Amino acid sequence: MAMKRAASSAVRALSASSAVNSFTRHLSSAPESKKIVGVFYKANDYATKNPNFVGCVENSLGIRDWLESQGHKYIVTDDKEGPGCELEKHIPDLDVLITTPFHPAYVTAERIKRAKNLQLLLTAGIGSDHIDLNAAAEAGLTVAEVTGSNVVSVAEDELMRILILVRNFLPGYHQVINGDWNVAAISYRAYDLEGKTVGTVGAGRIGRLLLQRLKPFNCNLLYHDRIKISPELEKETGAKFEEDLDTMLSKCDIVVVNTPLTEKTRGMFNKEKISKMKKGVLIVNNARGAIMDTQAVADACHSGHIAGYSGDVWYPQPAPKDHPWRYMPNQAMTPHISGTTIDAQLRYAAGVKDMLERYFKGEEFPAQNYIVKEGELASQYR
Amino acid sequence: MAMKRAASSAVRALSASSAVNSFTRHLSSAPESKKIVGVFYKANDYATKNPNFVGCVENSLGIRDWLESQGHKYIVTDDKEGPGCELEKHIPDLDVLITTPFHPAYVTAERIKRAKNLQLLLTAGIGSDHIDLNAAAEAGLTVAEVTGSNVVSVAEDELMRILILVRNFLPGYHQVINGDWNVAAISYRAYDLEGKTVGTVGAGRIGRLLLQRLKPFNCNLLYHDRIKISPELEKETGAKFEEDLDTMLSKCDIVVVNTPLTEKTRGMFNKEKISKMKKGVLIVNNARGAIMDTQAVADACHSGHIAGYSGDVWYPQPAPKDHPWRYMPNQAMTPHISGTTIDAQLRYAAGVKDMLERYFKGEEFPAQNYIVKEGELASQYR
Repeated sequence: MAMKRAASSAVRALSASSAVNSFTRHLSSAPESKKIVGVFYKANDYATKNPNFVGCVENSLGIRDWLESQGHKYIVTDDKEGPGCELEKHIPDLDVLITTPFHPAYVTAERIKRAKNLQLLLTAGIGSDHIDLNAAAEAGLTVAEVTGSNVVSVAEDELMRILILVRNFLPGYHQVINGDWNVAAISYRAYDLEGKTVGTVGAGRIGRLLLQRLKPFNCNLLYHDRIKISPELEKETGAKFEEDLDTMLSKCDIVVVNTPLTEKTRGMFNKEKISKMKKGVLIVNNARGAIMDTQAVADACHSGHIAGYSGDVWYPQPAPKDHPWRYMPNQAMTPHISGTTIDAQLRYAAGVKDMLERYFKGEEFPAQNYIVKEGELASQYR
Repeated sequence: MAMKRAASSAVRALSASSAVNSFTRHLSSAPESKKIVGVFYKANDYATKNPNFVGCVENSLGIRDWLESQGHKYIVTDDKEGPGCELEKHIPDLDVLITTPFHPAYVTAERIKRAKNLQLLLTAGIGSDHIDLNAAAEAGLTVAEVTGSNVVSVAEDELMRILILVRNFLPGYHQVINGDWNVAAISYRAYDLEGKTVGTVGAGRIGRLLLQRLKPFNCNLLYHDRIKISPELEKETGAKFEEDLDTMLSKCDIVVVNTPLTEKTRGMFNKEKISKMKKGVLIVNNARGAIMDTQAVADACHSGHIAGYSGDVWYPQPAPKDHPWRYMPNQAMTPHISGTTIDAQLRYAAGVKDMLERYFKGEEFPAQNYIVKEGELASQYR
């Protein structure tokens, strides 16, 4: 595997290794002036409404003064698509690109090819599937996330969505704003979460936090993953391992998707997989929209096989006005929001700053942050 | 206190006590034909959509065949208000009245006076404040609830509402259905629940279940009540007792109301009490609408002092079309639904059947079910 480019940090860390000779381009003695580009969502009037609202274009992770005081150039935009967009202007000469899953700049192989100076791709948040990771590895780039920065945020949000679906919240809310009152029209399909079977597809950091939060609800907890969680956590949560996904799906009243988007998981919940689930299943997906077959989900919501679907992830993002999930019955969708609470923003902004600082100094990142390093993808993306 | 009437069950139970002589009216040898009236919400087309949907008029708690096979008369209606309503027709000669908090038949002193044969008032659910309990006690009636039947249902629903408010769910949902996508307009005021201070006003059965469910969210948990919870539960949940309500309110990011409606708590959250809370407080109230000063809550939502208000209880119920809570900003209200999930309906239907069975046999009810017994109100209503 040809690794033509590398972040100076990675190079320095590898200076004693046999691979060092392939890291020849852009090998530079830090500090030097870097061109850093950030792609975030725009806040407009909202930017000034909360001093901790650092995740937007206007507030730029709160690192502008710090970067500029060290002589770096920091360009921030939300304009990320199409040939004439702001991001495109900077592709040829940027050194570092910071992106987020909430307003993803799709970093294609083609863009990577044209980004001759690019060394480092940082994801402000978790989930770097908007980047062509194989192309990044091939090009010798380093890709890193702020691992752990918003796992609690997402797990909490998943539990909220489970409850919203199980308890049939939205029809009641609609009655309130429409001037109606019809308890029966809500309660005929409102349930307690207690006693229901909840399965998580994926029990990584977020899935495990969800299981812990579900514990006091007295559900039957199941999980499917490549590897088992620790015996301690199994005991603490009472969650049972299901080796076979289809077997688990056939048991669940509620399925939560907690797996990264990879070539293996893309479109995995298609018509056939959904047919393995109970009629009336509820699905929560805060992982990635493209793990689902969009139309199969919409069809099953219309048929009633899926009795409720909630999540904050779509493909593509922003979701177009005619995305079928906007119009399907029994959906409780939002834009991509669960990992960008104010608390999460403060954490991932701090994590990005920490990695930039290490990059300038030529130091290693925390090991769990690497998604692509020295031409290798992190295990969850393989 | 004159106790002119009593359920035969209570009379029989008291046959050895000194109070027995005051229970003279309607002392009857069971079994005999009783006229039982139930007031529930109407389901219309929804009645047939779920075989377990027993809480509606049409399905009548699933006890019609059982009652009629024993020679009892069972009238069920949702028509509960105004001089010509169905309930009024039966007031003069009913023996037992079954009501629910979800579609409350307001059992006033005047109605009790006219209900000459009435012995027993059963609440299908929890919360009997729609009954004039002092008048019922004065008249020697027995009032009983199905204690515990829906405490889990309500506690789960409260946690859902906390998350909906903290994480700013509804603005995101509105964007989806309106064809919009503006992450900033949601995230500038979306937070994690983790690390926030949550206080429950009242730590009875529901409040305690809520504290247990909040435990894994790593909040600062506070509670205010007349009496402390057990040291074991304090240790398990980490919740701290606050003797002074105002002191607790000034600390809370989120206040949850879990106290019954009594003469002491009616209107307790007025303008002055709300002003004791943090600016930007979130309030969840699934207890009773009349615990709040309706207009004070609406005003504080408009001013922003209350940043979010969610609950399922109103006064009166059904809430009129012009109820100010329907129109205030940052509300996440529903009709009265949290305690009438399908699971809860099955439990309170079974509990009502059990008490009727005991009543016909002249047996005592489970002690914790009594709200008015032998002229005395249960402690939480005193």
